[in-house]
Amino acid sequence: MEATAPMRLSTRGDYESFVDRFDTFLFDCDGVIWNGTTLVDNVPAALDMLRRRGKRLVFVTNNSAKSRRDYVAKFARLGIQASAEEIFSSAYATAVYLRDVAKFDAGKKAYVVGGSGIRQELEDVGIAAIGHEDTDSVSLETLQDVVPNPNVGAVVCGIDYDISYRKLANAHVNLVHNGDCLFIATNDDRTLPGGKHMYPGAGSLLSVLTHSTQRAPLVMGKPNAPMMECVIQRFRLDPARTCMVGDRLDTDILFGISGGLSTLCVLTGVADEASVLSPDTPCATYYMSSVGDLSALAP
Amino acid sequence: MEATAPMRLSTRGDYESFVDRFDTFLFDCDGVIWNGTTLVDNVPAALDMLRRRGKRLVFVTNNSAKSRRDYVAKFARLGIQASAEEIFSSAYATAVYLRDVAKFDAGKKAYVVGGSGIRQELEDVGIAAIGHEDTDSVSLETLQDVVPNPNVGAVVCGIDYDISYRKLANAHVNLVHNGDCLFIATNDDRTLPGGKHMYPGAGSLLSVLTHSTQRAPLVMGKPNAPMMECVIQRFRLDPARTCMVGDRLDTDILFGISGGLSTLCVLTGVADEASVLSPDTPCATYYMSSVGDLSALAP
Repeated sequence: MEATAPMRLSTRGDYESFVDRFDTFLFDCDGVIWNGTTLVDNVPAALDMLRRRGKRLVFVTNNSAKSRRDYVAKFARLGIQASAEEIFSSAYATAVYLRDVAKFDAGKKAYVVGGSGIRQELEDVGIAAIGHEDTDSVSLETLQDVVPNPNVGAVVCGIDYDISYRKLANAHVNLVHNGDCLFIATNDDRTLPGGKHMYPGAGSLLSVLTHSTQRAPLVMGKPNAPMMECVIQRFRLDPARTCMVGDRLDTDILFGISGGLSTLCVLTGVADEASVLSPDTPCATYYMSSVGDLSALAP
Repeated sequence: MEATAPMRLSTRGDYESFVDRFDTFLFDCDGVIWNGTTLVDNVPAALDMLRRRGKRLVFVTNNSAKSRRDYVAKFARLGIQASAEEIFSSAYATAVYLRDVAKFDAGKKAYVVGGSGIRQELEDVGIAAIGHEDTDSVSLETLQDVVPNPNVGAVVCGIDYDISYRKLANAHVNLVHNGDCLFIATNDDRTLPGGKHMYPGAGSLLSVLTHSTQRAPLVMGKPNAPMMECVIQRFRLDPARTCMVGDRLDTDILFGISGGLSTLCVLTGVADEASVLSPDTPCATYYMSSVGDLSALAP
């Protein structure tokens, strides 16, 4: 029973039957729960209502800059209670993938072009992470000291606000010269929102290495399959009773559709009503103005 | 009279008739004159011989890390006398292009993702360069302070050993939000040689911005046309009496062919004899082991 156009949720009755249809809601964060550092109106009350009704909430984010523990702190600062277990980031998915799927050699290290969120998640699953120390300047004369490290078993690339040429050079030589070196990207978002403007995303930084090495990474994050496989396995989800909630049609909604989930697109972030209704974009099952509107069901 | 295979120069007679055919020789530097910091054998004597015979020498390099003044110093350190006027780098070509072709507004600034070589060349033609100071760390919280600067009239991108996220973010917002902002790349080399290994080149760093902004830059350097047009115009070259000498078939030799010049491929750098003779690569007019072999003609 495939919908040919998304169903708009706008009345209390719509909200009731929508909520009843699902056991689990996967939420994208930025543009849905908050915008940057500002909470979307009425979201805490809406999430409370879902919890009271026994729904399971999972927050799925491509942002690898923070660890799950950092995310718990961010939720708390914004007045939302959430546990680390409810948070599923691309950094965490990367760590779980390396440990459980790739059976990463415990004697090897991961070279990280990315933030402390990735490092923390890797270390939490017992994988040593290096690279964060490589911020020193380099010159053509000192570049020859940058050589492949046979202990590096994977290069992991995510958003890196402390990116340096030395890191990129290290990642490059390991990817090119270490035969079995895995190449994992936490996500491939072209841009990332930061207040009023968009800035280069993890996928844009990643393109240095895909271009220089001519290698293609395994991309974990939305809308790619590895993230969905990790989420479904980790929470033993029934796709028929799970809804993916997001603000981006080409990542969040596509991600939900690819995983066989129902999807809800909200208009508090990137997508507007015209793009939601366009025949040229991934078609969500539902759309509504804001997750906050579900707070109408709060007692 | 198009050659179907390159002619090998190996005897004194070959060298004599080759040298007689041209007034001007354009030389790539790395892999031809030197490798990294090591001079190729007998090159100074070969260049001296050409000068004694009244030939004009021009050194054409894609490397934008150094200014022409820096290059003169490097030549001198290696025992080769050369003047700044004989050196044509992609950084210099960029400066000349902005001033003479793009008629760059003297009240505007160029935002440089690149080294001091570009900054120096721009300032030498009277264009203010900013960006080199943007090496501070940034976070999602401070990122919103990175905003378009209406005084930025061009983003110039080259090899940058001090690349930072802050620079990339500034370049991105200026390219996206400043209506008339030019986008110039000094060169688009995928990799650069640095001793025993290759490392990400200017073209790989550039791909962050082409990906994030979805804009295509004007690429100055070899094998692209703007560099050739600048060289021909600057030195008033007669293509029929000019030979491009290089070690890379897909940049140097292609560059020469595109400009209607004769070409000489040497085997002291990237190309080997098999690739020179392959029907799948740009076909040089001539090839020889090393420029140094021309020293056989020295008195």
